[in-house]
Amino acid sequence: MDRESKLVERIARAFRAGAPKKDAKHRAALRLGIGDDAAIISPGGENDWVFSCDAFLEGVHFLAKTHPPDSVGYKSLVRATSDLAAMGAIPRYFLLTLAIPASRTGAWLEQFLNGMARAARSMKMVLAGGDTTKSDKVSISVNVIGEVARGEGVTRSGARPGDIIYVSGRLGRAQLGLDLLLHGNIRAKGSSRTGTAHAVHALRSILQPHLYPEIRLALGAWLAKHRLASAMIDLSDGLSTDLTRLCQASGVGAEIQSTAIPSLALPAALSKYKGRSGLDPLQMALNGGEDYELLFTVPPRNVKKLREAPGFSQLTPIGEVTRTKNVVLVGPNGTPKPLNPQGWDPFRR
Amino acid sequence: MDRESKLVERIARAFRAGAPKKDAKHRAALRLGIGDDAAIISPGGENDWVFSCDAFLEGVHFLAKTHPPDSVGYKSLVRATSDLAAMGAIPRYFLLTLAIPASRTGAWLEQFLNGMARAARSMKMVLAGGDTTKSDKVSISVNVIGEVARGEGVTRSGARPGDIIYVSGRLGRAQLGLDLLLHGNIRAKGSSRTGTAHAVHALRSILQPHLYPEIRLALGAWLAKHRLASAMIDLSDGLSTDLTRLCQASGVGAEIQSTAIPSLALPAALSKYKGRSGLDPLQMALNGGEDYELLFTVPPRNVKKLREAPGFSQLTPIGEVTRTKNVVLVGPNGTPKPLNPQGWDPFRR
Repeated sequence: MDRESKLVERIARAFRAGAPKKDAKHRAALRLGIGDDAAIISPGGENDWVFSCDAFLEGVHFLAKTHPPDSVGYKSLVRATSDLAAMGAIPRYFLLTLAIPASRTGAWLEQFLNGMARAARSMKMVLAGGDTTKSDKVSISVNVIGEVARGEGVTRSGARPGDIIYVSGRLGRAQLGLDLLLHGNIRAKGSSRTGTAHAVHALRSILQPHLYPEIRLALGAWLAKHRLASAMIDLSDGLSTDLTRLCQASGVGAEIQSTAIPSLALPAALSKYKGRSGLDPLQMALNGGEDYELLFTVPPRNVKKLREAPGFSQLTPIGEVTRTKNVVLVGPNGTPKPLNPQGWDPFRR
Repeated sequence: MDRESKLVERIARAFRAGAPKKDAKHRAALRLGIGDDAAIISPGGENDWVFSCDAFLEGVHFLAKTHPPDSVGYKSLVRATSDLAAMGAIPRYFLLTLAIPASRTGAWLEQFLNGMARAARSMKMVLAGGDTTKSDKVSISVNVIGEVARGEGVTRSGARPGDIIYVSGRLGRAQLGLDLLLHGNIRAKGSSRTGTAHAVHALRSILQPHLYPEIRLALGAWLAKHRLASAMIDLSDGLSTDLTRLCQASGVGAEIQSTAIPSLALPAALSKYKGRSGLDPLQMALNGGEDYELLFTVPPRNVKKLREAPGFSQLTPIGEVTRTKNVVLVGPNGTPKPLNPQGWDPFRR
């Protein structure tokens, strides 16, 4: 178990102990609590409510000098909402807790709010409230609230042996963008110091998934509505880490094929980077974080119906759920190796 | 308008501009959005849902060396929930976003969680989810979710001229506790270096409101249920600031009597502090933050019914809502003076 998951388990334990019996009704209404992508509360009407929260901190998740404030605003809302996509919920509201230095309440805040407002419009979300205070560094916490038809929210825990494991999109794109931003001698606006117009355009599209990620709301909602996925999680911390989490929650294992994983074909403009150790496409696909693609499992009988899914052409079967509790990567030569969680873990030293 | 309120107004504006029309239904379901104590969402059933969030940051809201981790955990949940009390809602769930240094994941975290779990049990709240990550300093954001019967949530904006202004409890107690903790040569466990057992006990009870505040959930819920209060807010930033906010939201003014304000009778054990400038009981009552008492307005026809309120003996009428938009404090000699917001404002320099 990765360190962050262990911490979450400790927190959950602290609050289970000695909980009053009078809570029984509300515990029952809480269909799903801490440990999944989001919490589901079932007030008894047509729809369940889905809640999630996400911290986005200067110096941990973004760098003041590297990341444009517009991206910080955009991304902090989008990444929180990705947890709703992973349950199949439709996002409705969000609350913003914002701590900023007084020196950032001018242009920085303006651009931050513009970016976040753009994300809110594109996802049709309404700001419902928040809290603001001062601090040395920017600290953002976003709370998102969504809806899903009663009982249709997809959790991490329903995967069964034999289910097919799917992933959306190409993995490692966000990691590539981050890597270029940090080490590639380019700026976030997408200009390289020596670049031609063509190269600039290519760079911009490479930075996009890191700075302004798109999330899979339509796919998630469709899978939930048609009850096709047995389990689902969004890829925020990397495939190796998030697949392990899904398997642990479901009490199963997985066998995935390295040749099947939709890793990056590195763009020609980056050919000179190919030799760098950080840019191994398979490693980036397995361990790069922040792709916000969906990883989900589908019982074999449902596989045919997947063809109707929004963005079906971007779905890739990468392996199968197994009865043993091991997560295994099968190499190009057919040799299986344990796949350890090597994605983003804030508490790894 | 205080600086924090101006910032909130800017944020609200950023998200109103260009909001898509398709949101109309969800905007309508959002009965009350940013700017009040909490947001109210009306999904259409028997109950409305009430949401609020609150940041609690090391170095801003608490000090690592001064505040016991147990108090930090307790208080961060309680103060967030006070916003639900101010709407008359019953708290149900909370989400915890916690960023901590790796060095605090041991004993510090254990005690922090114990304090928070104790608060959760006492308020019958269930942890529904959260997010954890690493940071240089402890940064806590708590999201609380409560319920109130449909349409019965009490906002800040319903005060009308002639309404009587009430406050619960005694004001300035939290400020006194903080002052003693910071300048009084005592430690948070309540021991003074020279104290007798009696003095230690007295000190402990003086620190209590600052370290482990109680909030007025029963009173808030009762006022909402009987529809007796026209407007309500919790006193988190000080009477002068929060009364001004309530008046601005309601488009009214207020005249309060300094002699009526339930300020502190300073305990004998503190007689030696009496000369210090910081310990003027009226100033502490007007501008001290974190009392988490309720400030509410009651139409004259409802005043009699207040006698049935839980904790009625601790309610004090302190003045009246006026038609002019000024907030005025009438001194002991009958002279009115403008009451400016002088409470806690993180952005005041």
